[in-house]
This record gives sequence, structure tokens and C-alpha cells, in this order.
Amino acid sequence: MIEPRVLKGFRDYLPQTMIPKKEIIYKLEKTFESFGFVPIDTPALEYTEILLGKGSGETDKQIYRFLDHGKRDVALRFDLTVPLARFVSEHYNELIFPFKRYHVAPVWRGENTQKGRYREFYQCDFDILGSNSTNADLEILLVIKNGFDVINAGDYIININNRKILNLLLEKLGLQDKYMEILRIIDKIYKIGYGKVLEELTGVGIEIEKTKQLLSNLNLTESSNSFAIQGDDIFKFLSKLKNELGNDIKPINDLEFIFKSFERMDILKNFALNPAITRGLDYYTGIVFESFISDRMEFGSVCSGGRYDNLTGLYSKNPVSGVGASFGLDRLLALMEDKSLIKNSQTKTDILIFNLSDDIETNSFYMTLATYFRENGLNTEVVYEKQKIGNQFKLAEKKGINYIIIAGEEEIKEKKFNLKNILTGVEQKLLTKEEISIIVKGK
Amino acid sequence: MIEPRVLKGFRDYLPQTMIPKKEIIYKLEKTFESFGFVPIDTPALEYTEILLGKGSGETDKQIYRFLDHGKRDVALRFDLTVPLARFVSEHYNELIFPFKRYHVAPVWRGENTQKGRYREFYQCDFDILGSNSTNADLEILLVIKNGFDVINAGDYIININNRKILNLLLEKLGLQDKYMEILRIIDKIYKIGYGKVLEELTGVGIEIEKTKQLLSNLNLTESSNSFAIQGDDIFKFLSKLKNELGNDIKPINDLEFIFKSFERMDILKNFALNPAITRGLDYYTGIVFESFISDRMEFGSVCSGGRYDNLTGLYSKNPVSGVGASFGLDRLLALMEDKSLIKNSQTKTDILIFNLSDDIETNSFYMTLATYFRENGLNTEVVYEKQKIGNQFKLAEKKGINYIIIAGEEEIKEKKFNLKNILTGVEQKLLTKEEISIIVKGK
Repeated sequence: MIEPRVLKGFRDYLPQTMIPKKEIIYKLEKTFESFGFVPIDTPALEYTEILLGKGSGETDKQIYRFLDHGKRDVALRFDLTVPLARFVSEHYNELIFPFKRYHVAPVWRGENTQKGRYREFYQCDFDILGSNSTNADLEILLVIKNGFDVINAGDYIININNRKILNLLLEKLGLQDKYMEILRIIDKIYKIGYGKVLEELTGVGIEIEKTKQLLSNLNLTESSNSFAIQGDDIFKFLSKLKNELGNDIKPINDLEFIFKSFERMDILKNFALNPAITRGLDYYTGIVFESFISDRMEFGSVCSGGRYDNLTGLYSKNPVSGVGASFGLDRLLALMEDKSLIKNSQTKTDILIFNLSDDIETNSFYMTLATYFRENGLNTEVVYEKQKIGNQFKLAEKKGINYIIIAGEEEIKEKKFNLKNILTGVEQKLLTKEEISIIVKGK
Repeated sequence: MIEPRVLKGFRDYLPQTMIPKKEIIYKLEKTFESFGFVPIDTPALEYTEILLGKGSGETDKQIYRFLDHGKRDVALRFDLTVPLARFVSEHYNELIFPFKRYHVAPVWRGENTQKGRYREFYQCDFDILGSNSTNADLEILLVIKNGFDVINAGDYIININNRKILNLLLEKLGLQDKYMEILRIIDKIYKIGYGKVLEELTGVGIEIEKTKQLLSNLNLTESSNSFAIQGDDIFKFLSKLKNELGNDIKPINDLEFIFKSFERMDILKNFALNPAITRGLDYYTGIVFESFISDRMEFGSVCSGGRYDNLTGLYSKNPVSGVGASFGLDRLLALMEDKSLIKNSQTKTDILIFNLSDDIETNSFYMTLATYFRENGLNTEVVYEKQKIGNQFKLAEKKGINYIIIAGEEEIKEKKFNLKNILTGVEQKLLTKEEISIIVKGK
């Protein structure tokens, strides 16, 4: 006998976790489509050369890589961004730009496992390619907002920053050559605090006065612990930046355009300008964002992204820039479970029809009745075999099916049935199938 | 520069193929759920030992197998049945039986590529585990019927057989030791014809008279070329079998129960009894089925399955039997494309709002208008940047978006807009957003 087990860092999805996962994916996909995004898919396996083109040393170590039957050096994708770059380069002439695609699919990384981290996990990406318009940035942010609205995991805040502002401030201080280094230190401010950031920045060789001025210009102060700027303060902060950097600076104007639009659309309360959010990754070049569920900040960002230049540089002479983001599905699910927002149910069935007699005639009647409910949008099961009523009740309770229908000889003749709500214990007698349909739908 | 390309036998899904694929998957999943099936998921990678436990030499050669970072012998799943057996054994005590699960996911086989065959493809499985009831067989067949009804690929016929009948006939002829050999020869009758089957069977060492009697008992005659028995002939054939084998034979009674039920449910025309369908695979032990779209028989079966005993034998002491089937998604898609039933569209967008002025005020108005349509279930895009009207028309046409809204200063002030149907060329002036919503929904 072989011991049935999954690989370390992998997991099965039982119905009670797969049902809510699929529901969240469906809601997000409908949201993407409501903005005109369309789905694509790419292979799980690609040439290693293609996947590692942009990889850092860290990715190299984590990638599942091997020789296939044809001795090709292949690997499982570790994200959906590199395959997208390859896809857009390869199909450049078949796509209509701006190209708005979403892709919900598993990726694989052989990293060390820890609580809540798996070697196979889903990414849920959406990007707009081939547009430099600020409206594309704005749209990605609206998608994130609508996504949170349909997921319904509680109050949320979408933090926005533009990396170019840090760049401009550094230029003014003559520190632009230390851009990525400084950016990564600032990115850690939530973890290590203001004091430690100040220390690390001076450690890099920046004068303490310049450091303090930089952080002050970014509204990162010792007394603050949130760094997120909200409401009217956003426009005050942008005015201050204009005083510092000049009146017609595009990155500042873009942020103003975005936040003024939110104000006019009456959704400003869902957003913050946050100069502490820089995203550690190399490839972002403009706007960046991270989003949090307000009463579960400790779960980290559940939707992040930003604008990047020349995604396709490695594979094509046609440079394609874009802006996009990704919902952290597994993190979101864990968070919603923590908030008891996930119904831990093994069923999606609305009605269970009891089996009181399994001769062909009665059985066919049950099956036809079930067909009627299914056609009316109600998930319906029939107990397969005649058995004690008590056992049939137990089955409904174990599965968690709310409504049961009991129909014996008399009821079938009259075409009126008894409906029982298992949750409330309420039983209604002699209902037509039409009446039952209305009651169960109204649940 | 790295050449952007996919591995041989793999492919990208562009929006125009991914949109219909996702729609078919969604319709099938809703069908499965309407019968009380629930989704599960298992890892793409498993221990090779687990996957090859049941494998034949053929599978060994096709499997993508390698050593992972921890020197574990791992492989990509080549079907969803072996992982299901492992899953049910591992989670036996967490599941409620009868356990009805569906699983739509990719599998990988490094087989030689040919037209329409890929090394990565989707399986779309649904099974009922832990029930020996004929009602479970009946239900799987009803799911197949409803699946074809929602996919809407044309008239279909679901062929049913029970392998045990062949077994009983062979026992009577004293040929039961040649069961699998004979079964596989009969399975080829559509390919090689009656004469060749007769030849091969006598080649196995069966007397010509016994062979002819066997084939005659199975209604496989030289003059027939369909072998599918339909309507009243089904019950005549079953009577003949009873005369041959006896009056209370379970496999015959089961078939009678199933077809009588279909007759009572008024869906008999979608089904056939077909003694020529045996399925080549080892593991089926009872009812088997294959389904065809009537005007595209040459595509082969697009939904097949059957009943099996002791799925979990390799991994567990708890024997679990079941019945299930699988829709061939890729084959179905190819068939529907062949019948021009697939809308070759790169968009799911209903409305495109033109951009006549991109100041914050007007832009926010467009965005808010788009939000209204999205909330009313209409997928809506806004052109990102102000540009020539002609270019905006071109974008709508290239994407294939049916409705466009043109709203300039005057229209925005009046909150009445011009709606143009690109397909018909009809333009309606000064409509409220509510009126537009009704018109576009009614499309």
C-alpha cells in the first residue's frame, strides 16, 4: 500500500475551502470584465531561458526546473508577469492596444515553507498594457476598489505613491545615484520604524540633515505611525511638494488628477497617499500601491501593484509599458477565515428530496421534480436509495442542506409536497413545486 | 534578445479562445453544482510513486518527472483520477459519502504531438464516490445530458453499455478468461468494421460459430453500421438478453431501470444502448458511456466515463467504488469552432464611452457614468485619452464593442447622451443613462 500524502508545501482543497475560493475568483473575474479586461492563459511549463531572463538569484534557487523528454531545459512558471511579457512579445501583432488582460492561475516556487506560505499558490493579476495615460493608472485603482467592494472582507484602504517623487527629491539633494538603496530602506519603515530608517540612511552615507529633510518632505515623521495621508491632507501635501519641486511636475500632477477624480467620484475615503509605500521590486517606475483590510493590517497588503516601463524588453523590440496589480487570493482567504466570513460548508445544494420508494415510477417522479428545481436555478439532490427517514435527515444535516422535501404516495398523487427547513425546523405542508421554488429562492 | 516562444505541444490562449473556453467551463460547473457536486483541487505536482502506482508502461513514458530541491522524486499529474483516488484515501474521514466532486484543471502528458493534441490540456471530471446505487449511474447520465443542453453544440447522443453483459455472455460460452481481450477487439468495431472484428476474434482462438452467436447476442451484425439501439428497440433488445441469460440478472435490470426512467422523464431520445461501446480502459467494471455530437461523429466521444470498483485500493484499506465521467473540453471547443458556434471576439465589453475632453471634471463624469453601467451589469470602458472621434470609432470596431456613447459638454449638462449601435449604425439621441441601460441589456 502507498501512503496517500501530498508534497511538503503543497495542499489539497476540500470542498469547504474550494467553494469560497472559487466564489472569490468568480467575483473578481466579473469585476475585471466589467472594466473591459479579458482572460488569457499561458502554459505552466516554459523554457527556463524565458522564465529566468529577468530572474534574480533568489528566483533561480526557487524555480522548479528540469530536462523534459526532448532534453529541453524547462521550468514551471513562478509568476504570471514574466509569461505575460513573453506572451505580449510573441502575439504583439494579434493584440489590440491598450491590451487589458486578467489571468488567474497557479504558480510554483520551491521556497522554504512557513505558516500560510505554499509552494503552489494562485496569482490573480490584471494589467493594462500599451498605455501611458494617467487614466489607466486611475482605472487599475478603480478595479481594486470594486474588487474589495464585491469581496466584502471589511473596510479597506488603498495606499498610493509615485516613486518618481522620491527620485525628484533625491535629485534635488544630489542623491539620485542612491535611489534604489534609499527606496528599499524607506520601504521598511513599517517594520523597523522611523529611528532605524534614519540610522540606515545615514549609514549609507547621507548627511543627517539631508536625511531629515528628505523624510520630512515625504511626511515621514517621528511622531507619525501610519504615514498614510487621507482626505484634504492629500491636497495640502501635494501643494507642499509643489513648493519644494516646482509647479508643473508630472508625477505630482498625476497624483493630483487621480485624487481629485476620486473626490469628484465620492470615493476618496477608500484611498490614501502614502510616501512610505515604495514596493521593494526593481521594475516599478511610476505609481505604486498596496492595499490593506483596516482591521487586519497584520496580514499585510492583499492587493499590490504599480506602473512599469518596457515590460517586453527581453523578448521584443516593441517596448510595451503598463500598469497592473494582483490580488493575494490565499492571503485574502486566510484573512476572511480569520474574520469568520467564510461559510465552512461542504455543499452548495439548496434542496434534498427524500427517497420514500425507489420503484421506477416514484423514482422518476423525484428525478423530474429535481429537474424542475434545477431549471429554476436551485441546486437539488435526490437521495439515491430508499432508507429510514432518520438516516435521510442525518444526511441533510451532515451535508448542511437547508431544505428537504418529503413526498410519499399521497403527495405525489396530489402534486403537493411537504417542505422542511432544517435550520429553523419549520415545516410547511402541501405546497406546489412553484410555491416551494419561491420559498427556497427567498431564503 | 530571447526569442519569445512556447514549448512544442503547448499553447497560449488568446482572449478570443479563452473567453469561450471559460464560458463552457462555467456552464458545466453550474450544471455539476445543480446536481449537488462540489469542487475540489489537488496539487499539480505529486510524488511520482503516488501517480505511477496505477500507471501502465505508456504513462511512465509520458509523465513529466524530475527531482525537486529536496531530492524528492516528483511528477506533474497526467490525469485527475489518480489524484482523486489519493485525495479520497487521505481525507476519507473528512468527507461525506456519497461524495460528489467535480474538478476542472490542467494535466500534462509528454506524448507525441499531433493535430488537436497538446501536452497540456484540461480535464473536466465529475464523479460520485461511495455509492453502488443505480441512481448514481442514472444521475451521472443526467448530468451529461444537462451539460450538452447548456453547451448547445447541437444534437447529441449518449451511448450506454454495461460491461457485465459481455462478461455474462462469455461465461455462458465458457470464454470468460478472454474477457479483456475480447472486450478490446469489440471496442474497435467502429474503426475496423464487423468483418475484421470477426476475424480478430477467431484469431484469438474462438470458434467461428461461437463468435457469430456472441456478436448476434450483442446485436452487432454485418448489416448494421451504427450499433446504437434507440427508442422501443432498447426494451426489445433487453428482453432478448433476458431470454438468453435469465430473468433476474442485475446488469440487465439496471439498464432497464435507467432506460425506463428516461422514458418516463421524456428524455429517451437523447440516449442509446450500444453494445459496441466497451471503453478500452482496464478499470471500468459496470456501466460505461460515450457521447457524440450527431453531425460531428468524426470528432469522437466528447464525454465518456463509467463505473469502477475500489478506486482507492492502492492507498487505503477503505474500498471506495464510484461512477463518473469527463467532458473533453478541448475536443468540444474544436468541434464548436468547426461548427462556427464560437464567437471569435476579443472583448466582453458592452459599452465604450468616448473621451471628448480629459479635464478632471469631464473625465470624472465619464468614470462615474461607467460605474453606473457596471453596477447595472454592463461591462463598460472609457477611452483613456481625448483623441480624434475617428480613432475612437476605429477602437470600438477593432475590439468589436457594439455600443458607444458620445457625451460632450452639452450632453453632460443635460445628462442625456447619444448612443450608437456600431453593428446596425443606428444612433439614438438624448437618452438618459437608465434608458441606455435598458436598450443595451435588451440587445
